[in-house]
Amino acid sequence: MIRRIDRIAVELPPPSEPDAAGAASVQELMGGRFGEMSTFMNYTFQSFNFRNRQGARPFYDLISNIAAEEFGHIELVAAAINTMLTGASPTDDGRAPKASLAPMKGIGNPHHFLAGGQGALPQNSQGRPWNGDYVFSSGDLVEDLTHNFFLETGARNNKLKVYEMVEHPAARALTGYLLVRGGVHQVAYARALERLTGADLMKLFPTPRIPTEKIPECKPHIKRGDHLRLYRFSPKDYLELAAVFNGAHPETGEDLVVVDEAPEGVPPHDLPSQPAVFAPDYAPEEIAQIAEKLRRQAGLPKAPTGEVANGRRSPAKRPATRRARAGSKK
Amino acid sequence: MIRRIDRIAVELPPPSEPDAAGAASVQELMGGRFGEMSTFMNYTFQSFNFRNRQGARPFYDLISNIAAEEFGHIELVAAAINTMLTGASPTDDGRAPKASLAPMKGIGNPHHFLAGGQGALPQNSQGRPWNGDYVFSSGDLVEDLTHNFFLETGARNNKLKVYEMVEHPAARALTGYLLVRGGVHQVAYARALERLTGADLMKLFPTPRIPTEKIPECKPHIKRGDHLRLYRFSPKDYLELAAVFNGAHPETGEDLVVVDEAPEGVPPHDLPSQPAVFAPDYAPEEIAQIAEKLRRQAGLPKAPTGEVANGRRSPAKRPATRRARAGSKK
Amino acid sequence: MIRRIDRIAVELPPPSEPDAAGAASVQELMGGRFGEMSTFMNYTFQSFNFRNRQGARPFYDLISNIAAEEFGHIELVAAAINTMLTGASPTDDGRAPKASLAPMKGIGNPHHFLAGGQGALPQNSQGRPWNGDYVFSSGDLVEDLTHNFFLETGARNNKLKVYEMVEHPAARALTGYLLVRGGVHQVAYARALERLTGADLMKLFPTPRIPTEKIPECKPHIKRGDHLRLYRFSPKDYLELAAVFNGAHPETGEDLVVVDEAPEGVPPHDLPSQPAVFAPDYAPEEIAQIAEKLRRQAGLPKAPTGEVANGRRSPAKRPATRRARAGSKK
Amino acid sequence: MIRRIDRIAVELPPPSEPDAAGAASVQELMGGRFGEMSTFMNYTFQSFNFRNRQGARPFYDLISNIAAEEFGHIELVAAAINTMLTGASPTDDGRAPKASLAPMKGIGNPHHFLAGGQGALPQNSQGRPWNGDYVFSSGDLVEDLTHNFFLETGARNNKLKVYEMVEHPAARALTGYLLVRGGVHQVAYARALERLTGADLMKLFPTPRIPTEKIPECKPHIKRGDHLRLYRFSPKDYLELAAVFNGAHPETGEDLVVVDEAPEGVPPHDLPSQPAVFAPDYAPEEIAQIAEKLRRQAGLPKAPTGEVANGRRSPAKRPATRRARAGSKK
Amino acid sequence: MIRRIDRIAVELPPPSEPDAAGAASVQELMGGRFGEMSTFMNYTFQSFNFRNRQGARPFYDLISNIAAEEFGHIELVAAAINTMLTGASPTDDGRAPKASLAPMKGIGNPHHFLAGGQGALPQNSQGRPWNGDYVFSSGDLVEDLTHNFFLETGARNNKLKVYEMVEHPAARALTGYLLVRGGVHQVAYARALERLTGADLMKLFPTPRIPTEKIPECKPHIKRGDHLRLYRFSPKDYLELAAVFNGAHPETGEDLVVVDEAPEGVPPHDLPSQPAVFAPDYAPEEIAQIAEKLRRQAGLPKAPTGEVANGRRSPAKRPATRRARAGSKK
Amino acid sequence: MIRRIDRIAVELPPPSEPDAAGAASVQELMGGRFGEMSTFMNYTFQSFNFRNRQGARPFYDLISNIAAEEFGHIELVAAAINTMLTGASPTDDGRAPKASLAPMKGIGNPHHFLAGGQGALPQNSQGRPWNGDYVFSSGDLVEDLTHNFFLETGARNNKLKVYEMVEHPAARALTGYLLVRGGVHQVAYARALERLTGADLMKLFPTPRIPTEKIPECKPHIKRGDHLRLYRFSPKDYLELAAVFNGAHPETGEDLVVVDEAPEGVPPHDLPSQPAVFAPDYAPEEIAQIAEKLRRQAGLPKAPTGEVANGRRSPAKRPATRRARAGSKK
Repeated sequence: MIRRIDRIAVELPPPSEPDAAGAASVQELMGGRFGEMSTFMNYTFQSFNFRNRQGARPFYDLISNIAAEEFGHIELVAAAINTMLTGASPTDDGRAPKASLAPMKGIGNPHHFLAGGQGALPQNSQGRPWNGDYVFSSGDLVEDLTHNFFLETGARNNKLKVYEMVEHPAARALTGYLLVRGGVHQVAYARALERLTGADLMKLFPTPRIPTEKIPECKPHIKRGDHLRLYRFSPKDYLELAAVFNGAHPETGEDLVVVDEAPEGVPPHDLPSQPAVFAPDYAPEEIAQIAEKLRRQAGLPKAPTGEVANGRRSPAKRPATRRARAGSKK
Repeated sequence: MIRRIDRIAVELPPPSEPDAAGAASVQELMGGRFGEMSTFMNYTFQSFNFRNRQGARPFYDLISNIAAEEFGHIELVAAAINTMLTGASPTDDGRAPKASLAPMKGIGNPHHFLAGGQGALPQNSQGRPWNGDYVFSSGDLVEDLTHNFFLETGARNNKLKVYEMVEHPAARALTGYLLVRGGVHQVAYARALERLTGADLMKLFPTPRIPTEKIPECKPHIKRGDHLRLYRFSPKDYLELAAVFNGAHPETGEDLVVVDEAPEGVPPHDLPSQPAVFAPDYAPEEIAQIAEKLRRQAGLPKAPTGEVANGRRSPAKRPATRRARAGSKK
Repeated sequence: MIRRIDRIAVELPPPSEPDAAGAASVQELMGGRFGEMSTFMNYTFQSFNFRNRQGARPFYDLISNIAAEEFGHIELVAAAINTMLTGASPTDDGRAPKASLAPMKGIGNPHHFLAGGQGALPQNSQGRPWNGDYVFSSGDLVEDLTHNFFLETGARNNKLKVYEMVEHPAARALTGYLLVRGGVHQVAYARALERLTGADLMKLFPTPRIPTEKIPECKPHIKRGDHLRLYRFSPKDYLELAAVFNGAHPETGEDLVVVDEAPEGVPPHDLPSQPAVFAPDYAPEEIAQIAEKLRRQAGLPKAPTGEVANGRRSPAKRPATRRARAGSKK
Repeated sequence: MIRRIDRIAVELPPPSEPDAAGAASVQELMGGRFGEMSTFMNYTFQSFNFRNRQGARPFYDLISNIAAEEFGHIELVAAAINTMLTGASPTDDGRAPKASLAPMKGIGNPHHFLAGGQGALPQNSQGRPWNGDYVFSSGDLVEDLTHNFFLETGARNNKLKVYEMVEHPAARALTGYLLVRGGVHQVAYARALERLTGADLMKLFPTPRIPTEKIPECKPHIKRGDHLRLYRFSPKDYLELAAVFNGAHPETGEDLVVVDEAPEGVPPHDLPSQPAVFAPDYAPEEIAQIAEKLRRQAGLPKAPTGEVANGRRSPAKRPATRRARAGSKK
Repeated sequence: MIRRIDRIAVELPPPSEPDAAGAASVQELMGGRFGEMSTFMNYTFQSFNFRNRQGARPFYDLISNIAAEEFGHIELVAAAINTMLTGASPTDDGRAPKASLAPMKGIGNPHHFLAGGQGALPQNSQGRPWNGDYVFSSGDLVEDLTHNFFLETGARNNKLKVYEMVEHPAARALTGYLLVRGGVHQVAYARALERLTGADLMKLFPTPRIPTEKIPECKPHIKRGDHLRLYRFSPKDYLELAAVFNGAHPETGEDLVVVDEAPEGVPPHDLPSQPAVFAPDYAPEEIAQIAEKLRRQAGLPKAPTGEVANGRRSPAKRPATRRARAGSKK
Repeated sequence: MIRRIDRIAVELPPPSEPDAAGAASVQELMGGRFGEMSTFMNYTFQSFNFRNRQGARPFYDLISNIAAEEFGHIELVAAAINTMLTGASPTDDGRAPKASLAPMKGIGNPHHFLAGGQGALPQNSQGRPWNGDYVFSSGDLVEDLTHNFFLETGARNNKLKVYEMVEHPAARALTGYLLVRGGVHQVAYARALERLTGADLMKLFPTPRIPTEKIPECKPHIKRGDHLRLYRFSPKDYLELAAVFNGAHPETGEDLVVVDEAPEGVPPHDLPSQPAVFAPDYAPEEIAQIAEKLRRQAGLPKAPTGEVANGRRSPAKRPATRRARAGSKK
């Protein structure tokens, strides 16, 4: 089971110049064979299907826990795509039945406009849907780990190329972050194979053979040490990560670290309505009125209770909560 | 982002007589068009793509939160399938290169044995992979809710028929539970549409028109009140569920209830190795030795730290923890 | 545009011993690459896309008109499959939540029971969906005709093999009829190619090289002359069929004939409810009551107005109508 | 069975400036999940698979009859696409082996040129083929109707967005018409659910929440009353439509009407040859000569007998026929 | 380019008791994600797309050459499947229109009978077609080699499980051979990665962790030394294999060897006609007569010139040829 | 089995102005339904599955041998695509993490850059993967030949249209060659059908009805006589081609000829590295150093042994070899 937190893993820039063609490219990191749906679903199914967990607990914990982080990655890819699509049709005065989508004809993935509401899709950069054949769950631990190392290698390749193709700030913030975190998973699976068999895969780093630190958008994350840390995404479980994830980082030689808590994340931007595609409505202001009324009837606060990066909710309150939680960890 | 808990939503029986053909049928509830991957991914993408969240917060919270519960449902379907496949090849003395899989030739889904390690697959009852075309995320709130109500209706149909086809105790425990919980989601989306538009869908319950209470395996869950409760699957977020989920249950007339905490769940069974399919290895005992050594080197306890239904971990300790946590709710 | 007639092309036997595995095989004739959806959709798209129709009117009329007959063929395949599935779950006293589908576990196409209501699917004998890649519509008349001849050849092969595999009376009545009618289309396309290019394909008959007349279930149709006739499936259009469809039948040497009217067909069997799969309901009798009430409110007759083979409507009335219509043709 | 009429449902403008990118977008209305192939095939299979038809005759008649109208819709979408593609390669002097298709490189759906003859495809706006998974035919009447209402809602969404994206006159004429007719089907299914269960879905209109009357191209059809009328597409069958389709229109309050006859439609444009893509030939004039010869040999008139909007056939004759037929209805 | 040799890689037993369910299972080794079509096509595309070949010649030669051997493997899998299907319908007196395929209803892959002529298909064990998404050709040499090592690991897993599931002598002869040869490729790619990066993967052998020598059907090939040899499948090219493929075998410590010539192979069995499925005809003897006449007209020998294991061609002649060629190697 | 030759069938021009959109179009000839993967795999599977080969040897030899030539065609299509993609990202100084791929955003097939290393894919012009459903192998010889004739007709259509759409010199050299060679196969299958059944398909040539000789890039091949020749792609086998492939060419009346040896081909261009997509590496020069070292350790020549069109290997040596080989044929 999971608990969900209404925050995203890392800060993305607010919407700026829309980039529908770029958003179509970034879809590869969502629904491609090596996209985040693949990493999320591969590790999730492997954890579901893990036999003799007690006998192989450190490995079970590792795979299960990385799966949990990957959910945050599909969420982040979606947020980047949505940011890039914002404004591709007019955000105000864009109501049908005008020709509001005419400038998008022949640009990017047509389903971003014709099927969806300028939102992310479970598809790759060609508009083909992600499918279950991308999941490998043989049940054989050595093989599953070999696969996972390969999967992360392919994922790193794809992220680097999307980085090179798409210069939109949201795409760059996304790929900069994912390259660092994916790199940790790549190390984790290689190290797990090493611990399990004695094989030494460390000289395969980095693959592709460009060091992560050469990428400007990766540097802040590296500086913060995020290239060395495996976070534990669970309040009480998956306690044996450190039995596998330890030793030197293959590129920098620094010590790998297990952090006994998940990152806090940041509130996402509340992206504006796109009335031309009816997202969330042809006349979004009507929903807001209904929502307020429903909230009142239920005895909830008049203002929305959710926190968003650009939100109305008082920022004073939340940090206090966060400090409290951080304090309780000590 | 999510936090993961190493427990499943409800207790399933331990492995008994294997049922490979039944497991193939239950796959419909995993990777079919109306399976749990579909409910999980539909609501997840709808929540990712939700525009003007603050303006429509009660609806955003509802969809986001149900998505979180659905993760637990794909986990549960997997657990049921894995239970049903356990023992289909010999659990001891079944090591290759014998003809250990010969009795499975032509039975059920061949990928359960030839591709996987007697484990669940992201496929339907015909062995076809789940795919992203099963996700509807138009961004139009009325349409997404209409879709979700329809999706839950189709899901209820499929669960009822799997119930009728597969008598294995794990399948019956699974469908009994999912029918009750899916029923709550069906009500939630119908009510959300009602609150948003004024349309009254309550007379569409139950669809299919067999009352849930007629199904023996549903009764304990109904008796416990689980047909009325929407749990909040988040430590701090999604606070506005009650603005939508309220009023009378369409079938029983009882009050719908929002529970401000997720269910605790139960520890899963640690299913035994299946060496004939190399899950988790041809010689699983070697992994256990390695794991123990790694745990020792990392300064972890000698025994596995994870809790499983049939586990070695002292049961005395965990309940205390649970009590503490339960106490903190009050 | 079309007008629809509530009759099927030829009489099928009423439901008898169900044959779910046979029904799964017959699906090849529905949704397989060479199934009736393929013939129907290929000719339909070719007619839609036909350029310079006036310049090539006899060929346009031929393709358009055969398309119209093919609709009746997908209808007939569906009727045969539905007949074969009738009774596979109990037709009375089979209401859920019993284990009414347990005998069907592992038999045939699981979607016949888990997804559908014991009804035909747009899938092939492997349970894979028909798809648009099976349509060839190049716009080049010679090529489209070459394709159509090949398609009918492949279709004949599949029908013969389904005949050999499935002995259920409905399957045999179906294949007996389709072999004769498909044979006419095979001749029509070969003759069209001959008229257009001068090439002589007549020595390719029969392919596969078993004469149709050797198949007992084909004999009545041959005796009636249906192997020689191209019917015109339109009240006023497609008048130029005879410009192409003429000359000697390649196997028998008899004259090919254009019949200036579509066959009358026969009323279909009204197949009984299958309450275990909720078709059309868990409690079908309630629908009947509602229907009667609605009919009354609308000023319609108390009894259903539709004619079915096993129906309640007086048979005396309809033949009169038919005679009248037949008379008006003269 | 069907009878086919060589006319299309509504007048489309003749070819003008070609728009290959627009044609690629319009494909969503043909082969998308919510396109006209989906509406046609869903209702067709539901009618084929309908059990206990006599007991539920008004509902069977409704679904069967709407299916018949939908054939005219796939025909109309094809006609619009073909119109938009006309002239994309030179219509005269465009014969291979020139570089006649070079301007189309990278524009629209490449299969419009490389696979087909500048003609419609059973594909969506991404070039992916329509497939049988888009058909829902559960056999459960309440569910099938729920699905159909949802399908029409999604279809309306897609039509509105295609309207906004594609300004070509053929696309606008198409979407203007389909929005009105699809709206009738959306009402019909909602009303059928209401009649069957008592649920009231009328407040869900319009979804998306833009009134149809705001769209200029819809207005003539609304003025004519076509938003209220369900036509009976059969000479003698499906007589019980009025038992379900009655009462007030959810948006306008006007009375819904069953028209006891199908619309006459109009003759389609005979689109010119595109010799660069060999449609219907590299040298189309040769086919015309052959056709004339074949017609003569068969004793048919020298001129083509078919009627087209831009045709050679005397217009004086046909209207007389039409009047006669219209007269016979009284 | 290739030259084709009409021989198969290793001797398979002649047809014996047919095993249609087994043949369906063996399809996994043909068209599954890890089947021989995948190995063949992956290495083939990687060789086609290899940039800077001269700079990386030893690696280019390795991949190109293994691709060539893989063609022989898809051929061998097909031969095994065809052998297993022989006799599933009567080989004599089995002519249609009897019910010759009735015993096959519901057994194995229906396309073996309904679509094909009891022959191999480009499908997996579930009847799903092989597709191009199974090809990984990133162009990055380290990644492609990582993939190839993983692919061979997955292939070994699938072969072992097919071995365990299918006891038919042809399947066992097939898997015994493929396990040994695939093992060589697995070593080759691991060694190539080692030579390129310094990483040591040798402790990953064997994966799955059952030694190949434990499998009885592998022993003769190991005894012959085939587990150590990389053959050069080219008359003059791919000369640099030994630059990569050298050193000790990871399991046995023996020296790896490059053999400068491809294996001779053996003539395949000429499998008998299956007239019930029209392979190669309803009346195969007629083809033989035509062939003989054509041969005579062309001045060819009266008897067929091809060599088959069970053939009519004089065996005396061929061995002489073979000796001569063998002699020339020295 | 095969032997592989490191040469391509015909000379292609060296890389010039890149054309990513053109390369995406040319993919239709690789992975489209009528592309070269289809011709290669169709004939290959038909040859694998051929029953009673001795009885039908001339036909078996024909199909088997054409299959062998088709391998060279997929190789050639790949070479053309790779040539067209060369330079689309900078060939020098193009190393990541720059925005080297930004100019390619929205151009052509995104997988050429994001998934692959500017290399050919097993996909069609829409980016959809080739799949096994494109293979027809019924086992019925008449049908398989009918299919093959149709397949070659469709392939000719696609090649002509790609010719018209893509003017890049590599695409024109490719299509010019393939049209001539494909034309030979089209004749071969028509003639085989004629020999087997007596049907006369010769008047179907040419289809599409544009004579091949009108295409400038075809002329040199026609002049050389390549439109008349069927080469034997085997050192010793497939000796009975002439029993089928003989008589007059349907268009020119010249005699068809069997050439008892495969064409020599030419060495391919060694396409330069594309470091921005890591093909074959981020720093390709490092691989070259490793390769040289490995060659030295293995006692191989210091310079690469392979021959390429633009290669470093002494051209003096190879022609001698070729002459010798040519001499030995006499």
